[in-house]
Amino acid sequence: MPAGPPLAVVRAGGVEDVRRTLAEASRTGTPVVTRGAGTGLAGAAAAAPGEIVLDVSGLDRILAIDPVDQVARVEPGVITAELDRAAAAFGLMYAPDPGSVATCTIGGNIATNAGGLRGARYGVTRDSVLALDVVLADGTLLHVGRNTVKGVAGLDLTGLIVGSEGTLGVVVGATLRLLPRPTRIATAVAYFASVADAAAAATGLGAATLRPAVLELVDAKTLAAIDALRGTGHAERGAALLLVQADGFGAAEELEAAAAVLARTATALTTTTDPAVAAELAAARRDALPAIEARGRALIEDIAVPRSRLAEAIGGVHAIAADTGTDIYTFAHAGDGNLHPIIRLDSDAEPGTVPPAAQRAADDIFALALSLGGTVTAEHGIGLLKRHWLERELDPAALALQRRIKALFDPAGILNPGKAI
Amino acid sequence: MPAGPPLAVVRAGGVEDVRRTLAEASRTGTPVVTRGAGTGLAGAAAAAPGEIVLDVSGLDRILAIDPVDQVARVEPGVITAELDRAAAAFGLMYAPDPGSVATCTIGGNIATNAGGLRGARYGVTRDSVLALDVVLADGTLLHVGRNTVKGVAGLDLTGLIVGSEGTLGVVVGATLRLLPRPTRIATAVAYFASVADAAAAATGLGAATLRPAVLELVDAKTLAAIDALRGTGHAERGAALLLVQADGFGAAEELEAAAAVLARTATALTTTTDPAVAAELAAARRDALPAIEARGRALIEDIAVPRSRLAEAIGGVHAIAADTGTDIYTFAHAGDGNLHPIIRLDSDAEPGTVPPAAQRAADDIFALALSLGGTVTAEHGIGLLKRHWLERELDPAALALQRRIKALFDPAGILNPGKAI
Repeated sequence: MPAGPPLAVVRAGGVEDVRRTLAEASRTGTPVVTRGAGTGLAGAAAAAPGEIVLDVSGLDRILAIDPVDQVARVEPGVITAELDRAAAAFGLMYAPDPGSVATCTIGGNIATNAGGLRGARYGVTRDSVLALDVVLADGTLLHVGRNTVKGVAGLDLTGLIVGSEGTLGVVVGATLRLLPRPTRIATAVAYFASVADAAAAATGLGAATLRPAVLELVDAKTLAAIDALRGTGHAERGAALLLVQADGFGAAEELEAAAAVLARTATALTTTTDPAVAAELAAARRDALPAIEARGRALIEDIAVPRSRLAEAIGGVHAIAADTGTDIYTFAHAGDGNLHPIIRLDSDAEPGTVPPAAQRAADDIFALALSLGGTVTAEHGIGLLKRHWLERELDPAALALQRRIKALFDPAGILNPGKAI
Repeated sequence: MPAGPPLAVVRAGGVEDVRRTLAEASRTGTPVVTRGAGTGLAGAAAAAPGEIVLDVSGLDRILAIDPVDQVARVEPGVITAELDRAAAAFGLMYAPDPGSVATCTIGGNIATNAGGLRGARYGVTRDSVLALDVVLADGTLLHVGRNTVKGVAGLDLTGLIVGSEGTLGVVVGATLRLLPRPTRIATAVAYFASVADAAAAATGLGAATLRPAVLELVDAKTLAAIDALRGTGHAERGAALLLVQADGFGAAEELEAAAAVLARTATALTTTTDPAVAAELAAARRDALPAIEARGRALIEDIAVPRSRLAEAIGGVHAIAADTGTDIYTFAHAGDGNLHPIIRLDSDAEPGTVPPAAQRAADDIFALALSLGGTVTAEHGIGLLKRHWLERELDPAALALQRRIKALFDPAGILNPGKAI
């Protein structure tokens, strides 16, 4: 993408601003890049010269929370954690909790179909979206979806728009499903002699038909980075860590069953139902990205593989690091087979550029994901950065259909051109 | 729809048969109606003269069940209950369980996005479909979706095809998500003095942030029909019944919390963790439809409303029965706000026809659903029977887009014309 300032920035104060901007852009054939908090990791919200940035972060009201229907009506600029906090006042939760939950917006989450730690049990953003108000490329305001939990009237346009990364329309309102907030949480942290052992233990939980609400893996390099940042002693206890949380009425008993599986191969194991201790244990996972980023700029990748291939995937990432001479940290939503390999960039790398070795490592990681029957992006989106990989992942006939659907929504091609599909 | 035999019936023995049939139908402009077990309730699989019936029920193999990845690969003619039984051998379940689970097929479930009793907790068919093999109208074989639990590469064509009632393509293979099968189930049956009390109690469970796996309501007329069929004594115990099941590690304790809410207003309440007693209690719900159908032919309707409007919806259905002089039985997936009003037809009604009073009652019920912010179909589909209601439910711009997407998939308009959208 060419560098330089965009043509204009429109800070939308309401739906009419969005409609007028898109109608005018369609008329003049001007590209529009919709933007929320700008926390995306695939470049979908980055604008080039000649493009209009449509900032909808100002549409940030929680319009309603209905505790009986367990739905929220929100504008797209609402910060995800703020919605979850508002839901908590009614004993409810908004389940999707991407790593950037404290700063990202619901609109951005909808654009990328964002996941998060609770995804293993409670699903991703698409599972929480019941209805959307969307401004189409020509300025038409469209309502899709329903107010009810179930409904099969017509084609699922709501699900189609979720994850479309700003290429089909601009979301200006959403009806979101809320869920009862678990009041009991039981937590375990287990250390293992190798990342392969940790991955096998994660798989073992599935084989025991256990389905914890949280199942996160952190590798040795990441543990060392956390120790360096926080003065903790994770690396002494093992070469990989699993964080497991069970919730709901049977939390303690479910965690006990999980701990029995973990104990078979763990080098160290701690369990608790005390929220303060749990927060301390969970910090090992929460600190992973800050600890890596404290060491410099990084490429944050986002592959997923079938759960049975998790150990192979992590082993493959480590081999790629050795092969390319790059510094790669890996943590994973192990319950979903979703890995985040983080490639640290040399501190002397030009800002805005990716050195060839890091780019090769990233490409090798994507190829690895596909070779294991996985995907190049589990929850961050294709954006700008992975666009050439989309063609390697998808059936060409499916990609062709997607592009024709895009053309049907946006005949002038003004909505986030060159991104996602 | 005009009566009479179809042009031809093709019993597909494999994917190539489906491809050749569709390619030839596209070439000649001949309509194709795909059919599985024919258990649908909205007429989507009914063919008219001049149309080809494409029967895919012979593609009925379970190709693989992977207990570690917790996915199944199946052909569309697999009976839903058979997949669930096969999954049970691995301690897993296939969650969607429509009323017709013992006879309906996975392909039909995908076509209608079928729900069922476990939907309140475990979601509907769309939530269980990871990938599809689909033959397009021109005979192209398309693969959409992924092998992983998460993935955001490209637009969600999989979700678009689920629920499209045979109008976008013919599903010839599916990768389905399986879930751990709950080993503990706790069951309660509560009776109430009125259906309004029962609906309020169901709502009260939500307000207490309880989310049982099953939450079913049966009204007085239906209880009387069950008593007549089975010699049970439900009607003596109350004018409405709630069946509540909790599952998982905390099942007993969760049910206890639910029972405390129910006990506030129930006229009778029984709880159990004994599977044999539970099966007996659950029979009150399972026998509902057979008991009504024992009294003659019936229209099985399928509306949903926001959960907070459940009591109003049931009261409204009872008022419509009085107003139209029709015999209407109501049971409901109360946890989803999904009602099944069953309109019994006069025994002297011409087969294949609906008497005017029954049709008026059905139309009034659809209008009621929309007036309460609901939908005319929660899980059966639009099919042939509710097509004119689709235009009243959906935003005209959304319906227009859906029809353009349909035209894009099927330019010759051969796939189930006149149905669904």
